[in-house]
Amino acid sequence: MTHARLTPLVASLPASVPFVGPETQERDRGRPFRARLGANENGFGPAPSAIAAMQAAAADVWKYGDAQNHDLRAALAAHHRVSPDNIMVGEGIDGLLGYLARMTVAPGDAVVTSAGAYPTLNYHVRGFGGALHMVPFHDDREDPEALIGRAAQVGAKLVYLSNPDNPMGTWHEAATVQAIIDAVPEGTLVVLDEAYIEFAPDGTAPRIDPTDERVIRFRTFSKAYGLAGARVGYAIAAAPLIKAFDKIRNHFGMSRISQAGALAALADAAWLTHVQAQVAQARTRIGEIAAGNGLRVLPSATNFVTIDCGRDGAFARAVLDGLVRHDVFVRMPGVAPLDRCIRVSAGPEAELDVFAQELPKALATAG
Amino acid sequence: MTHARLTPLVASLPASVPFVGPETQERDRGRPFRARLGANENGFGPAPSAIAAMQAAAADVWKYGDAQNHDLRAALAAHHRVSPDNIMVGEGIDGLLGYLARMTVAPGDAVVTSAGAYPTLNYHVRGFGGALHMVPFHDDREDPEALIGRAAQVGAKLVYLSNPDNPMGTWHEAATVQAIIDAVPEGTLVVLDEAYIEFAPDGTAPRIDPTDERVIRFRTFSKAYGLAGARVGYAIAAAPLIKAFDKIRNHFGMSRISQAGALAALADAAWLTHVQAQVAQARTRIGEIAAGNGLRVLPSATNFVTIDCGRDGAFARAVLDGLVRHDVFVRMPGVAPLDRCIRVSAGPEAELDVFAQELPKALATAG
Repeated sequence: MTHARLTPLVASLPASVPFVGPETQERDRGRPFRARLGANENGFGPAPSAIAAMQAAAADVWKYGDAQNHDLRAALAAHHRVSPDNIMVGEGIDGLLGYLARMTVAPGDAVVTSAGAYPTLNYHVRGFGGALHMVPFHDDREDPEALIGRAAQVGAKLVYLSNPDNPMGTWHEAATVQAIIDAVPEGTLVVLDEAYIEFAPDGTAPRIDPTDERVIRFRTFSKAYGLAGARVGYAIAAAPLIKAFDKIRNHFGMSRISQAGALAALADAAWLTHVQAQVAQARTRIGEIAAGNGLRVLPSATNFVTIDCGRDGAFARAVLDGLVRHDVFVRMPGVAPLDRCIRVSAGPEAELDVFAQELPKALATAG
Repeated sequence: MTHARLTPLVASLPASVPFVGPETQERDRGRPFRARLGANENGFGPAPSAIAAMQAAAADVWKYGDAQNHDLRAALAAHHRVSPDNIMVGEGIDGLLGYLARMTVAPGDAVVTSAGAYPTLNYHVRGFGGALHMVPFHDDREDPEALIGRAAQVGAKLVYLSNPDNPMGTWHEAATVQAIIDAVPEGTLVVLDEAYIEFAPDGTAPRIDPTDERVIRFRTFSKAYGLAGARVGYAIAAAPLIKAFDKIRNHFGMSRISQAGALAALADAAWLTHVQAQVAQARTRIGEIAAGNGLRVLPSATNFVTIDCGRDGAFARAVLDGLVRHDVFVRMPGVAPLDRCIRVSAGPEAELDVFAQELPKALATAG
């Protein structure tokens, strides 16, 4: 009876979750993780100034948040030297990707991404009836030429590129990304996911041109700013595309506390520098742990390190299962040959100690 | 160029906002309101225990919230004596209404509501290409027989009823609402919005039958629990319909801080009782202020009072404009004959003092 009420499209969708969260796993396991290194959360935390701002805002939470996200958009616009009309704030990049898919993808419309790239993009595209076309990673990086070539071939509405990418942590230089934007077919929009950009070397992000209607880029407060649980992402794009979000978004969807936290976090450049240094140290440490176990890591421009377990997907899966069994939450890529790797978030020393302790056992059991 | 990338449906939509928020008005006016009585926010605030829980959760906000909202759903299930499988938590009722429209409304599908009822429902229905059919209020209340009659006539996918209703604050007894559910045509889902139910007399909400697939009801932490800015609403329905939300929702969309706040608020029954008493007093006070100006108020089962300004919509609009000009944020119904009224939130004494001071001037100017 219920299904008779669903649209044919929605009735056809699986009740899927792009990711199983660590709390779900903890409930299934019956005990907590000792190291939470699987979701690329920022264990170094948000700025104390951001925590204080959220605590102060809690008393005012009887008021709805500002539906225009005015103050945060103004601060982001100043930060990126664009106009507030080029900024859309939303409930994480996940929420904004859902809006974008709804705005651009009608049933049957083509979207191009990389096999093994962000599952939540795929979830939203399928959710609106889009046809996903995937090209493989090349040398553990997203493949610009293949993405553009396929976009032209299938007449894609969207072509998705994460830079730095998830789940491998690799990246392309700004010039390469700009070349993708410059080569994009008429009618195709480049979806440039820069969730990890604050961890990347200078010269990774192409210059922001707020008049360029060929690209929309996504940034987040979930990673470098340590506010994953506050759900604040934003898009930067040409004003007409940004304005189109107002046609469909949940205008009063942002938490007032999260708005305050993001505003304070953005202003605290010193804490960001601190986090970047901590993450760089943690990446080095993960590399040392891997090397101590005879494993190679991929270069990373993110707050995680992808460890090549040196064999096939079944082996890496066994290593991961061993880690999870011993209370270390990590994840791994979903498709071959990326799935020979496991992905470890660059977390605090104590959690990496647990990982260092458990990795040899997991490898021994898997082997 | 951008519009070429939008779907035909989205391109056809206006960039509309169901409500203009008070912050937007304050920016346009160039000065703040002295009394914030327009959005039916709860000026008595959330429970101190909920504020404390949110402040404590702020330090943990580097973690994503639990995608299953497990703890909150479990607590709500216990509260309502249903299973967690009957509860879906989302980003306010607004967010959940958007999900429901997406799940059930294909282009051209009919939805029935009352003219002048919640604009955000209409926004979401139109946003998915639905065809809205409106029946008038009858004696300042939503009209059950007309709603059901029209639903049968047009083969509606959804029929929306708010009880108590917004914007008039009136209500039907549980038996009347149950009769609507019992009379709903095959294939139509009753969308029962009970956002204000905690302010209504006992006997307003029909018994929750978690097996009944003919109705989905919506509740919120934004009103009686004082957490509007935290964005926590929930749906109660039969398990198959609840499960269908997992096909399309933003799984990690809930703020971790909001989850903690809602959980604490639900547990604090004493604060809810306190708020209910404060709101009842404030309603009485608004009635006295109105009477002192020769105006009649409608009976209210909500945290606002609808004042009949006694003439036509243009007059009520002039009264409202006068109040806004003198820094009192209030709103009014959007269609005749409801628009002979203004709607005033049951706020704290100091804000009602400002309202009491400004209403006579606004009436004099309007007259």
